[in-house]
Amino acid sequence: MQLLKTTDRDFSVKFKALVSDRREATVDVSGTVKNILADVKVRGDAAVKEYTSRFDHYSPSSLRLSADFIAEQGSQCPVDVKEALELAAERIGFFHQKQLPQDIGYSDTAGVRLGLNWVALSQVGIYVPGGRASYPSSVLMNALPAKIAGVERIVMAVPMPRGEINPAVLAAAQIAGVKEIYSMGGAQAIAALAYGTESLNPVDKIVGPGNAYVAEAKRQVFGIVGIDSVAGPSEILVVADSQNNPEWIAWDLLSQAEHDPSAQSILIADSESFVKEVLAAVEEILVNLPTQQVARTSWQEHGAVILVEDLTESVPLLNQLAPEHVELCVDNPQQLASQIKCAGSIFLGRYTPEAIGDYLGGPNHVLPTARSARFASGLSVYDFLKRITYLECNEAALQKIGKAAVTLAQAEGLPAHGGSVAVRLQEY
Amino acid sequence: MQLLKTTDRDFSVKFKALVSDRREATVDVSGTVKNILADVKVRGDAAVKEYTSRFDHYSPSSLRLSADFIAEQGSQCPVDVKEALELAAERIGFFHQKQLPQDIGYSDTAGVRLGLNWVALSQVGIYVPGGRASYPSSVLMNALPAKIAGVERIVMAVPMPRGEINPAVLAAAQIAGVKEIYSMGGAQAIAALAYGTESLNPVDKIVGPGNAYVAEAKRQVFGIVGIDSVAGPSEILVVADSQNNPEWIAWDLLSQAEHDPSAQSILIADSESFVKEVLAAVEEILVNLPTQQVARTSWQEHGAVILVEDLTESVPLLNQLAPEHVELCVDNPQQLASQIKCAGSIFLGRYTPEAIGDYLGGPNHVLPTARSARFASGLSVYDFLKRITYLECNEAALQKIGKAAVTLAQAEGLPAHGGSVAVRLQEY
Repeated sequence: MQLLKTTDRDFSVKFKALVSDRREATVDVSGTVKNILADVKVRGDAAVKEYTSRFDHYSPSSLRLSADFIAEQGSQCPVDVKEALELAAERIGFFHQKQLPQDIGYSDTAGVRLGLNWVALSQVGIYVPGGRASYPSSVLMNALPAKIAGVERIVMAVPMPRGEINPAVLAAAQIAGVKEIYSMGGAQAIAALAYGTESLNPVDKIVGPGNAYVAEAKRQVFGIVGIDSVAGPSEILVVADSQNNPEWIAWDLLSQAEHDPSAQSILIADSESFVKEVLAAVEEILVNLPTQQVARTSWQEHGAVILVEDLTESVPLLNQLAPEHVELCVDNPQQLASQIKCAGSIFLGRYTPEAIGDYLGGPNHVLPTARSARFASGLSVYDFLKRITYLECNEAALQKIGKAAVTLAQAEGLPAHGGSVAVRLQEY
Repeated sequence: MQLLKTTDRDFSVKFKALVSDRREATVDVSGTVKNILADVKVRGDAAVKEYTSRFDHYSPSSLRLSADFIAEQGSQCPVDVKEALELAAERIGFFHQKQLPQDIGYSDTAGVRLGLNWVALSQVGIYVPGGRASYPSSVLMNALPAKIAGVERIVMAVPMPRGEINPAVLAAAQIAGVKEIYSMGGAQAIAALAYGTESLNPVDKIVGPGNAYVAEAKRQVFGIVGIDSVAGPSEILVVADSQNNPEWIAWDLLSQAEHDPSAQSILIADSESFVKEVLAAVEEILVNLPTQQVARTSWQEHGAVILVEDLTESVPLLNQLAPEHVELCVDNPQQLASQIKCAGSIFLGRYTPEAIGDYLGGPNHVLPTARSARFASGLSVYDFLKRITYLECNEAALQKIGKAAVTLAQAEGLPAHGGSVAVRLQEY
């Protein structure tokens, strides 16, 4: 953990270093992934099954989970978890429903009819990590926007190390209406989704988080299929005044830190004594935290506190850091929020810990990391929709605007472009 | 050019081959590009100027074009071209204005306030090819959506081989309100835009077409900045009944073919005699077409005609091909159009040659190629906007939904997530 003060002489140098801190894993897995992709492309199921046996120590006769298996396993999900997932699905669904956009269509003064239709993707794949990082909430966050967009075929891939699966993951799939589920993971799962095998038809887009192999495989199949953004380690930036309970803020910082040793938690505060209290609370909580090993590494290596003289200073700093999550633990958080240009999602006030958004606030928890909030957005219904534009001229409309097109085609040295218009203007 | 008939016994095999035909250049430039990017990142302007001198045979003292130079060169654009560009800008602007989305915001029954705000990207780079493929229309199609989205800083990079620039390109920049223009191209321009140099601050996203080096450079800087899709060779699919003038259809097919030897023009028709007339017209036009060398290569190597018994058969074929452009040269084109799920843009009826859309129909001419219309869309205002979601609970709202979040955090083995909520529920 490092402490920066805006009043320090070397603040701008230190802050710049914080901004450019790359926390991504640097192991190059591209060669391994390339081989796995090529193998699955050629040998299909046989290759997927071999890798599944090798990496997951599991050799199912069929990659696809049967409806019976899904029902049986899903029913083992504890009732309180299932109810919580249902509440989450309801809230996430409601928020994403509101995103559904309107088609555009009109005739203009030249008599041209034109517009833009939103069309759902036909088939998408959702990757759900297995084992320790197997999160039912990710199933909901990835599948529900697709469902609401109108995607007809949603395929889920989830690795089952030693044949085990978290019943809550299958319960979440049931709640989200996902029925086509395959027990496969890693690069081999991404290959199967992108190229198809004997067991499954390929999809058009693949979304969902995964380890370094999954991320690299998604990068390599991009173009053959669409992908969502490649997620990096999680981040939170908490802006807090001294009126907060320091323990609450400490929990918030640790809630990101426990995700990953490479996760980053940053606190911006305007009171040095408050900061000291938060730091003490972090240490106190860590002692008994079951995830203390991960959280401590993250906090020690990537954690930061920025002490400012006035919290309004936080906005330009925040916009440069472009964090995945921002908490504004102040009175009138809207005042700061309205100036934020670069962030994945904002959590306002003292009673909105970021974890609420991870599970059931409503907005998506798949958010841009590693400063990509400068140009990218969280997962949404839009990621499962395409826009198809259209244009219709009648003879009169073409007479009105066609000549200008011929002029531009000539200026660009494209005579057949001009010819295709001119021949219809009967001037060629 | 190959002729396929749906009644042929081997049609499905041949059609599958057509669908999987990869027309991308296969030269691997990734190593060269990697070196150029690394060099510009370290040496900045000096490196950019060296590559500009080497590749463009041009050694300007300043990379940035002065306002005087832009004004002087822009004024050399012929009046009719300038007027055509102004009409185009007006029509493109009008269509893209209609895309501006509404923010979402509401309080729900639990008392949670939440929403989604659309925020413009702060700064974007537009790459405009120089030399032969220097298109003023591309300036408008890339810059206007950014402008309309509200992007404050639009930076344009355009190579000037031997110091030359198409005055129409600068006139288009003036019309679009782009003032920060640099004479640089290739991978070195992409590097300068992504990393910044002494001459320019970096941008957050880079859009615009380019050659293989530009495309590869965009791939490699993706993540550091956002990029638009990597464009492949252009494509058109024309669905035409026998009531069309075969000459018109021939021009349409050639208008794509003249773009690039790797471009692809496909005709789906239901009349063998009509097809013969179109093929004859293609040959007749080619003889005197200034771009005949490129157009002939494209047509011979990648052109295709699919003869169907009924034009309704064209829809499933079309959805598999997912072409960049579709022309529906039939009566009641809406009937076919309503069934299209995969296409970049659709041109309806007998009086809407695709070239109208290239210049001034209104919809964007930057469109998904190489079957990516299965999952991708044309350039739009949305590509220059981000979505920032937000969530605000008060104490009462957190009491209502917080417990379910704690349950899910426990189920996912993330105790600090649960703790951050529970500590506020005063139950921990």
